[in-house]
Amino acid sequence: MISALGYASKNAHSHLHRWEFERDDPKANEVVIDVLFCGVCHSDIHQVKNEWGNSVYPCLPGHEIVGRVSRIGAQVSRYKEGDLVGVGCMIDSCRQCDACRSGEQNYCQGPNSWLATYNGPMKPAKEAGQNMYGRDNTFGGYSNVVVVPEDFVLRIPEGLDPAAAAPILCAGVTTFSPMRHWEVKAGDKVGVVGLGGLGHMALKLAKALGAKVTVFTSTKEKIKEAKTLGADEAYLEDDEKALEPLEASFDFIISTIPQKHDVNPFIALLKHDRTLAIVGALEEMKGVNNMDTAMLRRSVAGSLIGSIDETQEVLDFCAQHQVAPEIEIIDIKDINDAMKKVEKGEVRFRYVIDMATLS
Amino acid sequence: MISALGYASKNAHSHLHRWEFERDDPKANEVVIDVLFCGVCHSDIHQVKNEWGNSVYPCLPGHEIVGRVSRIGAQVSRYKEGDLVGVGCMIDSCRQCDACRSGEQNYCQGPNSWLATYNGPMKPAKEAGQNMYGRDNTFGGYSNVVVVPEDFVLRIPEGLDPAAAAPILCAGVTTFSPMRHWEVKAGDKVGVVGLGGLGHMALKLAKALGAKVTVFTSTKEKIKEAKTLGADEAYLEDDEKALEPLEASFDFIISTIPQKHDVNPFIALLKHDRTLAIVGALEEMKGVNNMDTAMLRRSVAGSLIGSIDETQEVLDFCAQHQVAPEIEIIDIKDINDAMKKVEKGEVRFRYVIDMATLS
Repeated sequence: MISALGYASKNAHSHLHRWEFERDDPKANEVVIDVLFCGVCHSDIHQVKNEWGNSVYPCLPGHEIVGRVSRIGAQVSRYKEGDLVGVGCMIDSCRQCDACRSGEQNYCQGPNSWLATYNGPMKPAKEAGQNMYGRDNTFGGYSNVVVVPEDFVLRIPEGLDPAAAAPILCAGVTTFSPMRHWEVKAGDKVGVVGLGGLGHMALKLAKALGAKVTVFTSTKEKIKEAKTLGADEAYLEDDEKALEPLEASFDFIISTIPQKHDVNPFIALLKHDRTLAIVGALEEMKGVNNMDTAMLRRSVAGSLIGSIDETQEVLDFCAQHQVAPEIEIIDIKDINDAMKKVEKGEVRFRYVIDMATLS
Repeated sequence: MISALGYASKNAHSHLHRWEFERDDPKANEVVIDVLFCGVCHSDIHQVKNEWGNSVYPCLPGHEIVGRVSRIGAQVSRYKEGDLVGVGCMIDSCRQCDACRSGEQNYCQGPNSWLATYNGPMKPAKEAGQNMYGRDNTFGGYSNVVVVPEDFVLRIPEGLDPAAAAPILCAGVTTFSPMRHWEVKAGDKVGVVGLGGLGHMALKLAKALGAKVTVFTSTKEKIKEAKTLGADEAYLEDDEKALEPLEASFDFIISTIPQKHDVNPFIALLKHDRTLAIVGALEEMKGVNNMDTAMLRRSVAGSLIGSIDETQEVLDFCAQHQVAPEIEIIDIKDINDAMKKVEKGEVRFRYVIDMATLS
């Protein structure tokens, strides 16, 4: 066993507290990683507070992990001690279903779906009737050490700042994957709804792909910030006058708002046959008006993080195009305050915990 | 001018009444058609009652029209007197936008969108600020004669019963077009939600395409009727026990329910990366749970009727595969009763007005 230290919550109403626990020794295919940095994702808050109803406790969040390999299992071939590596939202999948075999582990249809970096299998035993992973809970990156199968470990390319690389592992790939899937290309007009952790990455990645990017935000100050970050245009979400002339002009729109919201005003902005992808909210949305979708055969889709290959691709893409999240490095003792600020939309744009502050 | 006779309503609260009116003489590119049969579509009721808020009065419905050419304009080349022809939901479009030029007139993005067979331009002048068609209202097929540009006239192939051909012009193409667009093929598992005018055509067409078809209905008696019509399986929509094992097994689902409803139970039945198309309801739907869409990158789309080419294709396809709507021929004097029965879901499965009863 490996002695580990982290910050976890005991239940849905508890703050995160320092917690000593143990991790299993690495199996032959696993890598032990000393955590250097971990991003604070809005979904960490949803799960700490059990807002999706699927949380298991203790809940030790964190799935934007950057660290150094400190030990490897006997059969590990891709990583060696000292390598700078990353871990995102998944640490295992069934490896046998169609999705896994085609390299889309994030859509694993095994009995328990994929194994989340924290909070256990996506389909827990009580729902699936079995548990192929042999554990109901997993503990994430708000800790000093993680143990992960090498197939789910990413390489942090040279040229990426290790702290700034962390949010790419969730916020980056979550926005990059749908832009790849719906084939965003140079010259396309892309809309980004919401300018938080995910939204600001969507903006930067779409710009790096050569798209013209329009940001829609609920926060007046973020209009200017969007433009500073590279947006071609930025509007308040409810500015009907500004939105009207944009009708039917977008090739792709990504909604990154992390809770229930109304996508109807943005559906009207899509061209014929185009898609609005919702990546921020995993809950029931406001109803879509099918007059707007049907009139131009538009689609509203969901998209969930990205595959391991896509995660490596977006890391490499960010290094190549000098794309980096806007981060603020925090002490882990300030995590509860930081979470409150994330909820209030006060972070600019991602908190990253410096794990050296955990001791 | 051509003296015409039809059944129209004066306002949203009026029944349909016999109405004498005049149609313009045919322009050089137009065809005069003596109406033989006209189908009764649920959307006729929505528009007579102004349930979509876009009705203009008098409202003379009918967009599933079969008739004989009685006269042609000087430049008409594709049709001659005596031809058996059909007219669907559209009688003109801008002919200049990208959609029109690619043959998808049903997604016309001209200033007024397409010109509906009745109820005028899809985007009326009060919304568009102009009217390229020069008329705010049009009068449909619940009448003895229509005048239509030849490009929007369909050929009724030999081997199709003229009365049964009528519903193919809306119910047929509305369900066929999305099955073509989302590439339904032999062996696919297709779900049909709702077994009315559209639903029973979706079932027959999907079967003719070689798919395995499951029908979901709210009406117990329709379980048996679905199987009689060729469904491989049929379930009550709210039979959770029956639906659970079907999770993530469908290649395509089409929802034909003509009013606001909940598609969440059916989204869960879609495979990874597949689409549920809503064709029956043109209004705000119940909210979609993005947990279900995101988990397998599923899409919810709208689809609106079909193009002129697709309408001809589905007519020819029906003749070739011996697909015919289940119809009940009615006297036009019974139209108000018939509409009530359509609203109550009592029709099996499409009323078709015999226009010889209009005199």
